[in-house]
Amino acid sequence: MRILLTNDDGIFAAGLYSLYCQFREQHEVFVVAPESEQSAVGHAITLSNPLRVKEVYRNGGFYGWAVSGTPADAVKIAVNELLPSHPDLVISGINLGPNVGINVLYSGTVSAATEAAFLGIPAMAISLDTYSNPDFGPAAVIAERLALSIPRLNLAQGVCLNVNVPALPLEKIKGSLFTRQATIPLRDKFEKRVDPRKRVYYWEAEDGFVASAEPGTDIHTLRQGKISITPIHYDLTHSEALKLLKQQEADFLKLSR
Amino acid sequence: MRILLTNDDGIFAAGLYSLYCQFREQHEVFVVAPESEQSAVGHAITLSNPLRVKEVYRNGGFYGWAVSGTPADAVKIAVNELLPSHPDLVISGINLGPNVGINVLYSGTVSAATEAAFLGIPAMAISLDTYSNPDFGPAAVIAERLALSIPRLNLAQGVCLNVNVPALPLEKIKGSLFTRQATIPLRDKFEKRVDPRKRVYYWEAEDGFVASAEPGTDIHTLRQGKISITPIHYDLTHSEALKLLKQQEADFLKLSR
Repeated sequence: MRILLTNDDGIFAAGLYSLYCQFREQHEVFVVAPESEQSAVGHAITLSNPLRVKEVYRNGGFYGWAVSGTPADAVKIAVNELLPSHPDLVISGINLGPNVGINVLYSGTVSAATEAAFLGIPAMAISLDTYSNPDFGPAAVIAERLALSIPRLNLAQGVCLNVNVPALPLEKIKGSLFTRQATIPLRDKFEKRVDPRKRVYYWEAEDGFVASAEPGTDIHTLRQGKISITPIHYDLTHSEALKLLKQQEADFLKLSR
Repeated sequence: MRILLTNDDGIFAAGLYSLYCQFREQHEVFVVAPESEQSAVGHAITLSNPLRVKEVYRNGGFYGWAVSGTPADAVKIAVNELLPSHPDLVISGINLGPNVGINVLYSGTVSAATEAAFLGIPAMAISLDTYSNPDFGPAAVIAERLALSIPRLNLAQGVCLNVNVPALPLEKIKGSLFTRQATIPLRDKFEKRVDPRKRVYYWEAEDGFVASAEPGTDIHTLRQGKISITPIHYDLTHSEALKLLKQQEADFLKLSR
């Protein structure tokens, strides 16, 4: 397969390199990633600044292209300008830290996969459920097994996979489940501080996940030591709400009167 | 009503001010918005930098707070730190330019409404379908009519409205429809240029919308001169795909073996 690898932790991240090492033997691999860390950028693209592209070398050989933008920018420019032809698959990751629950919307890792889905290319985001001492090896193996399985899944156009892997050795992982995104709210906290010039500033300090998550969700599955695989898309329409609203539409025709 | 106004064009934008003028007579209005333009930031939040908050005065009186971050940051910090209590409604806009189709995912305007929905607060994003010579007056009137109607709509928790208004005088607007987000792909283009130091750079140059959009979508409705109102949420799960994948799950239990 011709595979585009990207991420949001930046082109020098270890998680990206572990994918590169896993795939380069058996596949044609291209690395195009942000030149710097782009965490929590959501689905941002760069319109008001030019994008720069730099060749990056690693261990004396060509490794990939660093883009002065977001993960979505990296995918766009890779597919439109840098790669010789459309890739068969885009893999974004391996992210340091999980991308589950409503954090999925803040995730640059996931936005790269969604951007590929826009462009009609099969894609997955893959994240490891730890923030410290990561061993990306097992997740890289999982990524390859999944990559080989994706054609069999017959995913509809525009659907990509958001994969989260427990931080466990392969033999300790308790299987994998297809899941839905948990929608339980996070509790936000801001730390209010005073700078040396006596001015107030705030740090966003997220509370982490709430205690409970329903079975069948990404959060619950990951906590059970299983791999969570969520099929996601880029249509934010709430279909149930739309159905109900359509019944009240007559009232709204007068809005502009 | 206690209403929080925000946007992604920045606190000094005319579209935001038009909402302020429309609502301040009959409602308790708070303005908390990014200090600078934040277009195409998607659902980004600021984790790696501190957030600064500045009081902004206009016409000799207090106008609101400027936040050194994204629209989602502005909503978070407004609700958690700046407002005396939870607002009854968050309105994000009026954006200069439409937010329809897959551009919804890039939209800072929409992300502010979605962030409010995370926090359990009714919310709408409102955008005007023009990039030049905007008259925000009609859209501000529509915003107020909709704001008064929202409680009647009985929207489920977590659902907010993405509203797009034609750039027409009120009497020329041909009604309003509840719609779904169009998912037709955009064609991306990059302009490749050379800087004065002979280095290559790229500008993202979007192609605009493709020619056709299905009836019932936001794009189609707006083109007919009608107001488009899409109920949106923050769950990216593709439910249909999940149902199909669940049937193949047994195969995937072996992923980690």
